Amino acid sequence: MNLTGELLIGANARRGQGAEFHAVDAATEQALQAPTYYSAKSGDVDQACALAESAFDAYRTLPAERRARFLDDIAARIEALGDALIERAMSESGLPKARLEGERARTANQLRMFATLVRSGDALDARIEPALPERQPPRTDLRFQRIGVGPVAVFGASNFPLAFSVAGGDTAAALAAGCPVVVKAHPAHPGTSELVGRAIQDAVRHAELPEGVFSMLFDAGHEVGAALVAHPSIKAVGFTGSRAGGRALMAISNARAEPIPVYAEMSSVNPNLLMPAALTSRAETLARDFVASVTLGCGQFCTNPGLMLGIAGEGFERFAATAAQSIDGVQAGVMLTGGILRAYDAGIERFAANPAVTTLARGKAPEAGSRRAQAVLFRVSAKSLLADHTLADEVFGPCSVLVECADADELRTVLNRIEGQLTITLHLDDADQPAAQALLPILERKAGRILANGFPTGVEVCDAMVHGGPFPATSDGRSTSVGTAAIERYMRPVCYQNLPAALLPKALRDANPLGVHRRFAGRHERTPG
Amino acid sequence: MNLTGELLIGANARRGQGAEFHAVDAATEQALQAPTYYSAKSGDVDQACALAESAFDAYRTLPAERRARFLDDIAARIEALGDALIERAMSESGLPKARLEGERARTANQLRMFATLVRSGDALDARIEPALPERQPPRTDLRFQRIGVGPVAVFGASNFPLAFSVAGGDTAAALAAGCPVVVKAHPAHPGTSELVGRAIQDAVRHAELPEGVFSMLFDAGHEVGAALVAHPSIKAVGFTGSRAGGRALMAISNARAEPIPVYAEMSSVNPNLLMPAALTSRAETLARDFVASVTLGCGQFCTNPGLMLGIAGEGFERFAATAAQSIDGVQAGVMLTGGILRAYDAGIERFAANPAVTTLARGKAPEAGSRRAQAVLFRVSAKSLLADHTLADEVFGPCSVLVECADADELRTVLNRIEGQLTITLHLDDADQPAAQALLPILERKAGRILANGFPTGVEVCDAMVHGGPFPATSDGRSTSVGTAAIERYMRPVCYQNLPAALLPKALRDANPLGVHRRFAGRHERTPG
Repeated sequence: MNLTGELLIGANARRGQGAEFHAVDAATEQALQAPTYYSAKSGDVDQACALAESAFDAYRTLPAERRARFLDDIAARIEALGDALIERAMSESGLPKARLEGERARTANQLRMFATLVRSGDALDARIEPALPERQPPRTDLRFQRIGVGPVAVFGASNFPLAFSVAGGDTAAALAAGCPVVVKAHPAHPGTSELVGRAIQDAVRHAELPEGVFSMLFDAGHEVGAALVAHPSIKAVGFTGSRAGGRALMAISNARAEPIPVYAEMSSVNPNLLMPAALTSRAETLARDFVASVTLGCGQFCTNPGLMLGIAGEGFERFAATAAQSIDGVQAGVMLTGGILRAYDAGIERFAANPAVTTLARGKAPEAGSRRAQAVLFRVSAKSLLADHTLADEVFGPCSVLVECADADELRTVLNRIEGQLTITLHLDDADQPAAQALLPILERKAGRILANGFPTGVEVCDAMVHGGPFPATSDGRSTSVGTAAIERYMRPVCYQNLPAALLPKALRDANPLGVHRRFAGRHERTPG
Repeated sequence: MNLTGELLIGANARRGQGAEFHAVDAATEQALQAPTYYSAKSGDVDQACALAESAFDAYRTLPAERRARFLDDIAARIEALGDALIERAMSESGLPKARLEGERARTANQLRMFATLVRSGDALDARIEPALPERQPPRTDLRFQRIGVGPVAVFGASNFPLAFSVAGGDTAAALAAGCPVVVKAHPAHPGTSELVGRAIQDAVRHAELPEGVFSMLFDAGHEVGAALVAHPSIKAVGFTGSRAGGRALMAISNARAEPIPVYAEMSSVNPNLLMPAALTSRAETLARDFVASVTLGCGQFCTNPGLMLGIAGEGFERFAATAAQSIDGVQAGVMLTGGILRAYDAGIERFAANPAVTTLARGKAPEAGSRRAQAVLFRVSAKSLLADHTLADEVFGPCSVLVECADADELRTVLNRIEGQLTITLHLDDADQPAAQALLPILERKAGRILANGFPTGVEVCDAMVHGGPFPATSDGRSTSVGTAAIERYMRPVCYQNLPAALLPKALRDANPLGVHRRFAGRHERTPG
């Protein structure tokens, strides 16, 4: 497929009239060859949103099987892009081949998981309360299902050019919910975005859906994204990025005549608790696994373990020493963009210059001018952290802060003070269980996912995943961006009271023609089969 | 029970240090006898919130049966207040006895419904994705449940002194979700609030729960409410009231360091569509039933039918004539407060003075100085409504606007333009079904509840109810304030990855010791029994 650099607006592709920009090779910061990308203008936003709005009713009322097949088809078309997609994504993101192949598999599986969910009808949350004509006063028939909220704006994320981008989790969840999607492509991977965007556009055409089901806009700056979130036709927003970016979108939504949900995943340092018995028995293994996790993908995961908490002692010192040793051998890595690399460098220099912080060890220094990120491990006391909460701020990249707590009480105090997180991890042996049990209520309040004896960098796409968490990990801790529960962000409930049978949505008809799981008179209805 | 006018802060009762105020007889606007009520100050807010915060973990991890029994006990204690509660509520609200007895039954049933929901464990939405050790890469065990969000601030509403007040839907849902509650009592019914608040306080004591599970604060003004919503310990807000009030609370939340969900139910004119065949066959019956609904409880329901849409013609004229005739005989009624009465009078005078509006008929004029509200029926053309959207603004009270549409297209245009609503009602005969079917997608986008051949003023408390709707009907159209689904507003998901069995919440243990409904590997698990 030849890249053209065009905006995808419904069934059309056309050159934007705004500022031009080029894709950039992440490793060299050199502009990649053609095409030139052009930013959209407000007229493009209006048109994409108008098409999305007009597609909404037809798309959301499509039979489940057709919507599911459309999602499956997007997955197949992304896979069919083959090596061209992987190679383009490698250049634009600097991520290695195996990682991107894995991410592609995850992206396709995610689309298929939502197709399965659509077929099951579970997300409809169908409920029936039959009429009680004998009751005084009589009750009329009441039925309940969830429907899509309306057109959704999705922002591609820089760090997952496939799985959190054009056809990523938010797009898949919104399309599964019956919502048209307008994507604001991330300018760090416009070619990858165009390839995937055209695959979705083709799938829309193949399925003979209203063209407005999908559009994709480019912008070198922030204006298009701001206009999208402000547009009256847009009813929800999915975003993964910085805290400043997420807060800016929240502010735009709050200023709308009709505020809308903004699901922004923003920042997390993903505390890991090194429990005493685990440190005693296996500090060295833990330290080596930790260094592998924190430097994986050059540390560019939302779930990177950025804060390692332990209680002072011999085990803690062995952990620190082994981690320092391990990080020493880590090669400097390519980061996603020059901007991210410079923010990382500034972040680690700020830490290194802080008198409360010890620089435990650094990875291999990058060659001069090589535009690589050096891994770093810092160490602070819990007292310093409690005195200066910026020491628990996220620095996006391959670094982490080891925090020495005087005792279990101080560890508890630190946990009570930290901000909301995507994940918190317990490293524990059997003897640590009572102490861990006592901490669990705090962990539940602070994070969307609690792990034991693993590292949070892998995020399974499944029914039981929560990739979310209290503010500021995300703007809305009631939600997840990964897993089947992500569909809920783009749905709202509707009650049908005393409607003639012919007017009822199929899922709510007496005979249950779609065979969906339902609650009937407050009980789970036995489903056929 | 003797009223004392004290704040209820945890297990204690003490006099507020802020401005004093008195309960007012709604019918006469005369101050009721003792006690004097005193407003809370910021220190009281801090203390109530600190107690709520410290009660949260113990309360939310209570065995389901204990939490359920606590809810049942609140219901029993409210019933045990007997006539004293009804009489006090009659004086303070001006609502008639039968209505308040019905509301008390609804309030108690609502608490018991949530107790049943807690016992079932359904709101946990428990999910298990078992480990797949053979898969490459292997998958670890993942489990999912929902937990309470934290302490909730609930604002009592003036128009339902029991069912949407101190022990109303939001309090019941929050307590069921495992969240402590701090109520800001409505100053229009402080005695009713104190009676119910003390019943809850007694139930907390009887159940030996942490005292912070419930507190209640008085305030003659808005400062206490504002401080509550701004308090860092408060994690969600439930409010029913004016659009200005709801928007003010949303703004306070948005300005917090950690924004929180605000569930504000604000305004709705609850359009009713008078379909042509229904008008032809039964315009007169419809008109009489409509007048009964619009004047019920002096029109002080969120779901009052405030906008009646029909297509010009003979049936529409019969409807208008009969409605005018029927409203002519309606007695002037007592409103909840003097402020609400004056706002109503100003609202109807604004309509009456608008040259685009015809005053079709008025109910019986109130006697001079009697502080009663006169029912009114207005009539406008759809063209006028489309030219001036303020004609579709809510005027809270016994009035409604009859809108004449030139044809089905104009009716459709009006529907497409109206704001989000709690309800939309179809009055239809069999012959109207195709036209209604074509309108249904618009209705689903505009309202939380769609009714046929009834009036929206009754709101069933059950599994399939949605009392919510797109902005500005509410601040958050993803939610309902009535029915079991209301519990979701106060819950958030947590994922447990690879946790030792002993650390898992009971609902997620392999043997399912609580017998809750779960999803296992993506499928509904058969529950015992």
